[in-house]
Amino acid sequence: MSVQRRSDCPIACALDLLGDRWTLLLIRDMALGKSRFDEFLDSPEGISSNVLSDRLKKLVQMDLATKSPYSSHSRRMTYQLTAKGESLRPILKAIGRWGLRHIPNTVAEQ
Amino acid sequence: MSVQRRSDCPIACALDLLGDRWTLLLIRDMALGKSRFDEFLDSPEGISSNVLSDRLKKLVQMDLATKSPYSSHSRRMTYQLTAKGESLRPILKAIGRWGLRHIPNTVAEQ
Repeated sequence: MSVQRRSDCPIACALDLLGDRWTLLLIRDMALGKSRFDEFLDSPEGISSNVLSDRLKKLVQMDLATKSPYSSHSRRMTYQLTAKGESLRPILKAIGRWGLRHIPNTVAEQ
Repeated sequence: MSVQRRSDCPIACALDLLGDRWTLLLIRDMALGKSRFDEFLDSPEGISSNVLSDRLKKLVQMDLATKSPYSSHSRRMTYQLTAKGESLRPILKAIGRWGLRHIPNTVAEQ
């Protein structure tokens, strides 16, 4: 995926890829074991199905997730984190830890 | 600042506050010692002055930065991270580390 680069700063470049309100939440869902469109749709944040489709497509384009058929007889797809996607876990942890500490009434993931 | 909360997840709540393309870059700049409007404007990403004004105001509202006069004879303001803002450093580090590793031709901060 080509993204307009703002600078050579690794933080700026990473935010260009990940810095929207939904991408990291889908990575969170996959890190917690969710893999199907319906499961992502069911997350409490209430992502809309068209935003979800768009973000899943981008996650695959960015090589953060892979898409594969649920079974040989199904047209349903499952999404799994790639190694590159898995390597976002420390970012999720750092953000989650900060949120738990600084934002009232937040509850850690199950 | 009141923000529409999408869920009680600390990651989602933190992204509601920080998950845009500019907020964490200003935190980065302050963490690197920049404190004045002109200095933020000079960063290589080329933030526009109206977006910069808006984000600085929000950082102060969120208690991530404080605003104070440059000197008793100046109307120019300086911005400094609060303890809450400083506590975002581990997030910046995690994002920067990921960017350096996974995004070609990124260069670590000076």
